[in-house]
Amino acid sequence: MMIIMHTDATPAQVQLVIERVEACGLKAHLSQGAERTVIGLLGNVRAVTPEQFEYLPGIDRVVPISRPYKIASREFIPENSVFPIDGQSMGGNEILIFAGPCAVESRTKLLEIAHAVREAGAHALRGGAFKPRTSPYAFQGMGEEGLQILAEARQVTGLPVITEVMAPEQVCLVAEYADILQIGARNMQNFALLHAAGESQHPVLLKRGMSATIEEMLMASEYILSHGNKRVILCERGIRTFETATRNTTDINAIPVLKSQTHLPVILDPSHSTGHWQYVTPIARAAIAAGADGLIVEVHQNPEEALSDGGQSLKPERFAELVRQVKLIAEAMGRRVAPVRAEQAAAQGQA
Amino acid sequence: MMIIMHTDATPAQVQLVIERVEACGLKAHLSQGAERTVIGLLGNVRAVTPEQFEYLPGIDRVVPISRPYKIASREFIPENSVFPIDGQSMGGNEILIFAGPCAVESRTKLLEIAHAVREAGAHALRGGAFKPRTSPYAFQGMGEEGLQILAEARQVTGLPVITEVMAPEQVCLVAEYADILQIGARNMQNFALLHAAGESQHPVLLKRGMSATIEEMLMASEYILSHGNKRVILCERGIRTFETATRNTTDINAIPVLKSQTHLPVILDPSHSTGHWQYVTPIARAAIAAGADGLIVEVHQNPEEALSDGGQSLKPERFAELVRQVKLIAEAMGRRVAPVRAEQAAAQGQA
Amino acid sequence: MMIIMHTDATPAQVQLVIERVEACGLKAHLSQGAERTVIGLLGNVRAVTPEQFEYLPGIDRVVPISRPYKIASREFIPENSVFPIDGQSMGGNEILIFAGPCAVESRTKLLEIAHAVREAGAHALRGGAFKPRTSPYAFQGMGEEGLQILAEARQVTGLPVITEVMAPEQVCLVAEYADILQIGARNMQNFALLHAAGESQHPVLLKRGMSATIEEMLMASEYILSHGNKRVILCERGIRTFETATRNTTDINAIPVLKSQTHLPVILDPSHSTGHWQYVTPIARAAIAAGADGLIVEVHQNPEEALSDGGQSLKPERFAELVRQVKLIAEAMGRRVAPVRAEQAAAQGQA
Amino acid sequence: MMIIMHTDATPAQVQLVIERVEACGLKAHLSQGAERTVIGLLGNVRAVTPEQFEYLPGIDRVVPISRPYKIASREFIPENSVFPIDGQSMGGNEILIFAGPCAVESRTKLLEIAHAVREAGAHALRGGAFKPRTSPYAFQGMGEEGLQILAEARQVTGLPVITEVMAPEQVCLVAEYADILQIGARNMQNFALLHAAGESQHPVLLKRGMSATIEEMLMASEYILSHGNKRVILCERGIRTFETATRNTTDINAIPVLKSQTHLPVILDPSHSTGHWQYVTPIARAAIAAGADGLIVEVHQNPEEALSDGGQSLKPERFAELVRQVKLIAEAMGRRVAPVRAEQAAAQGQA
Repeated sequence: MMIIMHTDATPAQVQLVIERVEACGLKAHLSQGAERTVIGLLGNVRAVTPEQFEYLPGIDRVVPISRPYKIASREFIPENSVFPIDGQSMGGNEILIFAGPCAVESRTKLLEIAHAVREAGAHALRGGAFKPRTSPYAFQGMGEEGLQILAEARQVTGLPVITEVMAPEQVCLVAEYADILQIGARNMQNFALLHAAGESQHPVLLKRGMSATIEEMLMASEYILSHGNKRVILCERGIRTFETATRNTTDINAIPVLKSQTHLPVILDPSHSTGHWQYVTPIARAAIAAGADGLIVEVHQNPEEALSDGGQSLKPERFAELVRQVKLIAEAMGRRVAPVRAEQAAAQGQA
Repeated sequence: MMIIMHTDATPAQVQLVIERVEACGLKAHLSQGAERTVIGLLGNVRAVTPEQFEYLPGIDRVVPISRPYKIASREFIPENSVFPIDGQSMGGNEILIFAGPCAVESRTKLLEIAHAVREAGAHALRGGAFKPRTSPYAFQGMGEEGLQILAEARQVTGLPVITEVMAPEQVCLVAEYADILQIGARNMQNFALLHAAGESQHPVLLKRGMSATIEEMLMASEYILSHGNKRVILCERGIRTFETATRNTTDINAIPVLKSQTHLPVILDPSHSTGHWQYVTPIARAAIAAGADGLIVEVHQNPEEALSDGGQSLKPERFAELVRQVKLIAEAMGRRVAPVRAEQAAAQGQA
Repeated sequence: MMIIMHTDATPAQVQLVIERVEACGLKAHLSQGAERTVIGLLGNVRAVTPEQFEYLPGIDRVVPISRPYKIASREFIPENSVFPIDGQSMGGNEILIFAGPCAVESRTKLLEIAHAVREAGAHALRGGAFKPRTSPYAFQGMGEEGLQILAEARQVTGLPVITEVMAPEQVCLVAEYADILQIGARNMQNFALLHAAGESQHPVLLKRGMSATIEEMLMASEYILSHGNKRVILCERGIRTFETATRNTTDINAIPVLKSQTHLPVILDPSHSTGHWQYVTPIARAAIAAGADGLIVEVHQNPEEALSDGGQSLKPERFAELVRQVKLIAEAMGRRVAPVRAEQAAAQGQA
Repeated sequence: MMIIMHTDATPAQVQLVIERVEACGLKAHLSQGAERTVIGLLGNVRAVTPEQFEYLPGIDRVVPISRPYKIASREFIPENSVFPIDGQSMGGNEILIFAGPCAVESRTKLLEIAHAVREAGAHALRGGAFKPRTSPYAFQGMGEEGLQILAEARQVTGLPVITEVMAPEQVCLVAEYADILQIGARNMQNFALLHAAGESQHPVLLKRGMSATIEEMLMASEYILSHGNKRVILCERGIRTFETATRNTTDINAIPVLKSQTHLPVILDPSHSTGHWQYVTPIARAAIAAGADGLIVEVHQNPEEALSDGGQSLKPERFAELVRQVKLIAEAMGRRVAPVRAEQAAAQGQA
């Protein structure tokens, strides 16, 4: 249930509603828009009726919410969530592109690739320090050393860093080094981890589980949102189907479906959703044409030698071509790919 | 196996190769390019070796074909297949859009919608006269009367007509009235029907089966191609997965995969692949951005009253908006939506 | 809708109801049980209400049918359908096992395998004369010659024959030679073929489509039933999923689901549903334990040389072991595997 | 790679091999059978060759292992793993049945159901104290209080307790109260949790992820095994497919596939794999017929009032009937359902 206040409701009226909500054993979720305040009711909403609130002063109307997720829904917050990521804006008209290797493999290689993706137009550097691998005998990532290398790459390139966190007790450690916490597909319903990420104040990139429905993904985001963290980015990364020509099946439908049902930003990972570098650029274009707010792309200077996911990684020059093509599609959509720092700096220098 | 002739091979040399191929109990498939002739070997190719041919005069080289489909593969025919459909060009740089109702419901309604989609920019009129319905008690289409109405619509609008054929014995009848034969998803592996369509000289739109792999779809096209009909259009229409937010899951990956593995034109049906009109336009844009050569879209003047598939049909004005947006994406891709006849005429008038 | 007559309703009363149903533009489907007559209404049932019939003499009550399929549903016909197949009983307490090669490959081989499966306890001989193959270049079956060989095998072994029919125009030809018509998975929604099979008076084995839902399978059976053929056997043969350890995923749930929703007999094809001979016997046991009425199994004397599906075919001695094990499970279920002719004869001889 | 020692190899010879393995930077996994010792090599096995070991004294032969999982594979340990669970034997000829409610809801209800399932023949009590729920607003379990109630139920009924653990830091707490740790489907690839469970000495019930392949499940078990815990029970609980008639699709094939590829015990959860109580008993029978070593079943005294999963829970009397039917199938398989304590006691009393 959601209480929509009058445009001229006073703070005292809002406060009175909040108190009444809490007196019913529910939690009030405040959403202050430019024009009016909306108060969402969280908890066992079935125990109350609209009539218990409607007579209070300052209330325009009380509306039910039909979705099982609340804070994530557009019914609850109709406007797109736009939030800053290290000075750039996520979820607005500008498109952001995150790029980098699957895993941090060494300091030298990471710094090299960090410069390369920055040059090519990336807005953040991705790279795994903790790697969730199907086999216990496969390379499990460099751990904290990898985080330190990422932090150094950030310092020298100015790119914010996005990296995966795999367990609740890692959240603090990873948050020390990274700008965006990534929760991987295998952990989409690791509720203890979602809870911990919800208590962090870092933006969270939540990847869709391999066979999670769109609704389950929104429910997973609700775990993070309901613990107080509002900066959640949803990431489609392909679902598991019978088709074997590609590693996963890009659920491109998920982009307009998510954009219609939630105010959260939505991005695509065309590297995992296709699994073959040849298809990454066409699918990146398709994502932007479908309405995505960004991309996360695997780039490696030497894909054939990568310790993981080589076959789906673009070489830096191919990634630069991807950015060029994505810019054209973004313009056809009336949007634009966010300028990179260097361009910003140059632009500011010229001004 | 494929025999690539020298650029200066003589017809007699080509003839000699053909005879040798046939002497081995195989069939020779001739593909005469601008520069050179390529001879494909069909049949039990494992019974022969390259050495049996290499010494013949005029042969440049003999190369194996690794795919189970032959005529459909890019290995066999490297250049895009471009063919005329009633004066328009399919598979080239121009994008074609087919539109119309799911089923022909009455003469009045069909003529009205035919004018509307032509006005909005469609290049062909779709509409089912024979409808494959899950239930024997559901509306099964108007049959031959529906075909006659379609033919009338063609006459008054100038739009070529595309309609479904459901059984081998219907091919002749449908071909009398229609310009393009459609083979539906449920019949993708109806081999008797594929055979019959292969013997027709009408272009065939082959829809992917609900759970057919991309390779199976190419094999199905091979049934048509190997019976002599070269004008096959492949149509992705969504696959069946666990996701229930949409009717099917658009396998957008299929577009670049198909474009890399076959020379045949590839289009998307965003109406069936999403099942909700709200998502049709974003997914239509995505298809073009991914490299599709066209679209087939359900349009109905009164979707809520449609006898089938109302929920996924666009109203004419929304379809016009789809065309407008698709044009922008096509331009960003360095392509263009084919001009409609009226525009052509006007253009010619001005010239 | 379904009209349940009183136990003492007269034929004249039944006739009156039928006339009234037909006067409403509907078709009446008569089901005369031991105790009472039930009249099912087919057609656009929404146009009538129970009140239009309830007052007629001899009617006990009028009940709605909630499923989209009618004649196939247990609401319509509560008792199991039990029908004869060449003197044996399908759908009752006895379990029938159909066995034989994927395809008829030669007269010698077929006669040999026919004797072997009879010896091992099979109740009917399976074998394809027309083969639906993914590739146009693969062995397509021996055609009518294969049918003739099957007919000869029937004559010498006494086993009824089950073989696939792939197109409406083949139904008459196949029915001349075979005892049971098989409609394959790829043709489950080939409605023209279902229609033709419905007009035949041969029992029809309907295989589930690779990605058909249980409800769609029941709707497909309804196409056959509504054209007058009541002897339909439903066959689960595995569905397409992401799992690659087996060829298909045996949907064992489908057996109790089908047995609860329809009165038609239900069997399993463990050869196609697993794709590996090692798993055929355990899954055959599971099917019987889940409530299946029979099995259809691929048996080949020399699986490694089979022209198709060798890897999933049992050798005759392994098939004999399957029958032995299935008998034990059948007994644990309070059922039994039907005695084979020889045993019957022997039993009669002893009597 | 696996080094198989001679039957008369001495401990010193074994020790020498171990040292040589470790000198190569690999780990040696000792498996001492009744007849001979087998030493498995874990780590980057590609760096060594059989020739590096074959000449050592006491070695019979060196064989490669083809599967990505090692300790879990039958190549590595050919005999079934049989291990004790609170005095009962898991993985041998006897079948074990675990039963109880989805979640612990109250002390009174749990004690009641614990007595009921014991009476009906269960060998362990299941019940969730920590519940992984799709929605953050749904009942999340009673937590530690629930564990205390489970421990009390164990004390009064003598049944060992199995309950879910959702995060690495819960392992110690849950292990204090429970006899078997359950890792749920959503956490099958929560590698931090698998690691923690591997360091515990409690048996672990590992449920297959909703869309995990059989191989991925075995790899997940390898995470537990490789951390030193040998008592892993694999549990098929249905996979996600397009079929909607049931909650999941029971992958019955997984049972013979797993039994052929691993020595670990395999059980089925027919409650989650069907989602409807009506189908639980037939599918439980099918599992045993397919070769499963046990079952885990949801039982609730009042399913319609259950806080979760009511629709798939059996009432105690229906569960008793399930046990009765499963016994018959077990006997047909030459196995038996393990006697319950009371019976054992009575049997001992009589002796």
